[in-house]
Amino acid sequence: MKDISGMAAQVAAGDRRALARAITLVESTRPDHRAQATALLADLRKRGRSALRIGLSGTPGVGKSTFIEGFGRMLTGQHNMRVAVLAVDPSSARTGGAILGDKTRMPELARDPKAFIRPSPSQSTLGGVAGRTRAVIDLVEGAGFDIVLVETVGVGQSETMAADMTDLFVLLLAPAGGDELQGVKRGIMERADIVLVNKADGDLLAQANRTAADYAGALRLMRHPESCPEGFPKAMTVSAVTGDGLAAAWQAMTDLTEWRRDRGHFARQRSVQAQNATEEAVWAELKRRMDGSPEASRARDSALARVKSGEIGPEDAAALIVNAFVRDDPPSK
Amino acid sequence: MKDISGMAAQVAAGDRRALARAITLVESTRPDHRAQATALLADLRKRGRSALRIGLSGTPGVGKSTFIEGFGRMLTGQHNMRVAVLAVDPSSARTGGAILGDKTRMPELARDPKAFIRPSPSQSTLGGVAGRTRAVIDLVEGAGFDIVLVETVGVGQSETMAADMTDLFVLLLAPAGGDELQGVKRGIMERADIVLVNKADGDLLAQANRTAADYAGALRLMRHPESCPEGFPKAMTVSAVTGDGLAAAWQAMTDLTEWRRDRGHFARQRSVQAQNATEEAVWAELKRRMDGSPEASRARDSALARVKSGEIGPEDAAALIVNAFVRDDPPSK
Repeated sequence: MKDISGMAAQVAAGDRRALARAITLVESTRPDHRAQATALLADLRKRGRSALRIGLSGTPGVGKSTFIEGFGRMLTGQHNMRVAVLAVDPSSARTGGAILGDKTRMPELARDPKAFIRPSPSQSTLGGVAGRTRAVIDLVEGAGFDIVLVETVGVGQSETMAADMTDLFVLLLAPAGGDELQGVKRGIMERADIVLVNKADGDLLAQANRTAADYAGALRLMRHPESCPEGFPKAMTVSAVTGDGLAAAWQAMTDLTEWRRDRGHFARQRSVQAQNATEEAVWAELKRRMDGSPEASRARDSALARVKSGEIGPEDAAALIVNAFVRDDPPSK
Repeated sequence: MKDISGMAAQVAAGDRRALARAITLVESTRPDHRAQATALLADLRKRGRSALRIGLSGTPGVGKSTFIEGFGRMLTGQHNMRVAVLAVDPSSARTGGAILGDKTRMPELARDPKAFIRPSPSQSTLGGVAGRTRAVIDLVEGAGFDIVLVETVGVGQSETMAADMTDLFVLLLAPAGGDELQGVKRGIMERADIVLVNKADGDLLAQANRTAADYAGALRLMRHPESCPEGFPKAMTVSAVTGDGLAAAWQAMTDLTEWRRDRGHFARQRSVQAQNATEEAVWAELKRRMDGSPEASRARDSALARVKSGEIGPEDAAALIVNAFVRDDPPSK
């Protein structure tokens, strides 16, 4: 049995080795580790620390690593903040070894003592990528980081996932012709609080400005007045290479954050997120229990054979399987 | 208590009023009706009747109703077959009243004594649209219909659903410019056994031929030799208005059906479909039971409050909720 309150104190004091051990603990599937992780996270939550959680998505080739490197260095430098960068990649089965890859693509930030970079947990971990990432967000928040940047790798599912567990959602796009939407799904665009058109430098500057103006028009149509002040969602240009626009982007994030904090919007949003995360976890846990239940397996084999022979239908089979697994008889209704 | 074996005999003898009552029974959510529906379907299945189940999808405006009217009348007339047309629309909450709409859009088939048209069950029915549609397919098969045409209304989810519960999947498309894929998702195109380019008449004839040739090229790349003979998936032209191509389309369906039946492919496919339907039904049943369990509700309320206060995480909450609901303690692993 580890000394959990000692570990919590070390993590809270900014000990990076303790943080790494703590992450290994919350990502573990062992039941004893799980109980310890719960105790550790509860201890850290009690300290009441709060980070700003920023989701960041972008199509491949948009310059996301360079952006995070420049943006992260600005925050750790000029703003004296501690920044954690977490990747989410639901399609990946990669393991801890890939941390080298993340350190290589953001070399300066990786060496920065005020930054912490963590690759995506592998899909096989308990609770899946979403559950593990949520736990690591809580952990680095408890460890006193000011900013948690949740970066999505890949497309589609991971973007929704990142938007579902952060306070702000930023979409990084490349300059493009007027009509293209760059393969960005409308559903993702609707989640964006700020669209940053990257590569606003050199030959692409004019095109980046046009692209930002196009998106600004599209975003005006998607405004949700209850969660955004006038002028948001906002489209702006940045250059991760020259650093132009990074300060303005941070200012926009700060403005939006203050507006939302003042109105209790962050608290409400985190409450909804906690509820959704719990619903998701319930289904994952039910599946895990069912797969591990010999009674359910036997009932499933026998019921499936009866469905295939035509004796019963799929819903009759479902009732038999669930009966073998669930505490009580179905309530009449 | 109804006389279930009497009802089964009437349905099997082709009594349309009995069939309508039987459909109402299998769509009911009352537990006693559910038990009766199980008995009824089991009785009908024992008779060993088998219909050819054809899934039919098409983008809006492609002329699906006119096609079904012409195709269905050809089967009931020239081929002396009994044809059931079932609609699936997972997005709809429409009720029995909408049957008038279906009758209006296929007026001749609706009056044809050898045809039977049924609108989509509403989403709120037990087991959802998919479960209810599967039960009605079994019912009309037991009632001695030779062809069950499962027509999808709307796009996306319903198309996959129709492909998942039929023996053949037909995609109806309009003539189009060479490069367009008419908003058809690749995933749906990959499920198609036969693509029919409709409106191959008058001014659109040449364009329909070109479109069919384009699709034929695309389909060759998607061929699954284990489930399709040489030449399938196939793209052909039809005109629902003039009737041109309907006989050839039916011939192609018959050829593919014989090839698949000879190789045991239909039986294997129905077995896989039964298994998938059972898995789906298990989740629907678990959700229903959980929503109806006072213990689970109490555990959920209390666990959610602890998540929101930061005392425990979503996965801890999930374990507490599932413990209140599931028979045994979690297996160690």
